[in-house]
Amino acid sequence: MVHLPLPVSSYATIYGVDKPIMRLTILGSGSVYGAPVLGCECAACYRARNHKEYARAETSALLEEDGFRIVIDAGLPNLQDYFSKFSLDNILLTHYHMDHVMGLFKLRWGCNRTISVIGPDDTEGCGDLFKHPGILDFKQKAVAFKRVELGPFRITPLPLEHSKLTYGYFIESIYDESKSLAYLTDTVGLSDEVTTFLQKQQIGLAIIDASEPPRDEPPRNHNDLTMALNIHNQIQPVDSVLTHIGHELDVWLEENPSSLPNNVSVARDGQSYHLGIQEALCHVSS
Amino acid sequence: MVHLPLPVSSYATIYGVDKPIMRLTILGSGSVYGAPVLGCECAACYRARNHKEYARAETSALLEEDGFRIVIDAGLPNLQDYFSKFSLDNILLTHYHMDHVMGLFKLRWGCNRTISVIGPDDTEGCGDLFKHPGILDFKQKAVAFKRVELGPFRITPLPLEHSKLTYGYFIESIYDESKSLAYLTDTVGLSDEVTTFLQKQQIGLAIIDASEPPRDEPPRNHNDLTMALNIHNQIQPVDSVLTHIGHELDVWLEENPSSLPNNVSVARDGQSYHLGIQEALCHVSS
Repeated sequence: MVHLPLPVSSYATIYGVDKPIMRLTILGSGSVYGAPVLGCECAACYRARNHKEYARAETSALLEEDGFRIVIDAGLPNLQDYFSKFSLDNILLTHYHMDHVMGLFKLRWGCNRTISVIGPDDTEGCGDLFKHPGILDFKQKAVAFKRVELGPFRITPLPLEHSKLTYGYFIESIYDESKSLAYLTDTVGLSDEVTTFLQKQQIGLAIIDASEPPRDEPPRNHNDLTMALNIHNQIQPVDSVLTHIGHELDVWLEENPSSLPNNVSVARDGQSYHLGIQEALCHVSS
Repeated sequence: MVHLPLPVSSYATIYGVDKPIMRLTILGSGSVYGAPVLGCECAACYRARNHKEYARAETSALLEEDGFRIVIDAGLPNLQDYFSKFSLDNILLTHYHMDHVMGLFKLRWGCNRTISVIGPDDTEGCGDLFKHPGILDFKQKAVAFKRVELGPFRITPLPLEHSKLTYGYFIESIYDESKSLAYLTDTVGLSDEVTTFLQKQQIGLAIIDASEPPRDEPPRNHNDLTMALNIHNQIQPVDSVLTHIGHELDVWLEENPSSLPNNVSVARDGQSYHLGIQEALCHVSS
């Protein structure tokens, strides 16, 4: 389980600014296979098996500002442990594939609270989540390009290109629109409409699906590295962080260490990013 | 995660017998709610939150003899960690409710091996397990009362009374039929046919669903304590262990400490039982 940084409860003068900090912490950065993969002896799985800082859990993140906390995707199987240790305000789902919602199946059986889960209007959902929601409230649906406010965040759902109805999210701070984030997984490429929308924004940090090494054949359902870097180049964030990493991409990156631009890095579980395009992006390992 | 006892690789002369030991280890003993329940301040959840030996994971068990190992039910979300640390030969499922199969969703994406999963012929299964089985092989189906051999075990599926097609299992050692086990969860009562079958067997240990305290109204889908003790009395095992325990039953048992017969106990995660009706049942905590 990722060791989360201390909660950001109010203004962060320790960073020389007098505004609330907007922080994203990677809870998981793995593809559906994660790392280590059972039975796999590749260099990435060997490393992840022996050094847990290289392990990759289900892709998900924690977004915080001014004491308000949103979990983006719910694939961590021990998600209820986070909710028991911290006050978490909402869950924002990209889609209802199992590796993005598995943690809801246990979390729903909590008591004495209601947790709002906001995601695509996918009538199937996953398993019996809608039939037996327990303490989860699925009423609020994300609608493409319809901006909503959640606590200190303005959130715009962006239709992604995936095998199930999926939204990425463009997220701004209500305190300072220059603090902004584009969360873009799971997807294979972006539609022209989403690309055009993002090109009109100032994006501090883009979190981009990059599941596989560069492929000769067009990838299905997830970006390979080439497509991920194309997205980075098209939408021009200050920084990009690649996520939903498969073990084969980890091996490829070890063998091709100079393949990423300076402002593109690879996510690690537990890593935090402080957002704001007027200041240097602050990468803080947990 | 339960700390498993050392593997039993061959004959166990340390116990004064020269036959392989048949051992059952409780991997999880909790109801679908488990313990602690998020947000619950009952005495059982408080205790489970502060003393992890009282926590209850998803009901499941590990059965071993002569180096052969079967996992009964796959609800532990970290199930792949067991498969990476030990050689496990088969998975035996009682049914396809999420709290009994959740661990399969990650486990399936392993590589370089095939894992046979034997369970009821439930055409729905759970989620997309059958559509995307990965390394899991669901071909072998359990059939009511049709005994099969798996390694050193003779296993007879027993139809249980539940909201989804569910089998319990009567399991004997091929080395010594007096080593026997009846695994009876999830169920609310037993059919006459199953009761009659079990009354004809010598049962060393019965593992019995007991999810709730005694109720005034007939329980649905799971035994309350009264029904669990009725089953114990009807099938007359040497010992019974209650499992699939809900937090409300834990509280009730604390308040009613003399409510169980001497040969009935409550499961704890990690506890092991050495089986054989000719010798005293050996309870070993991990």
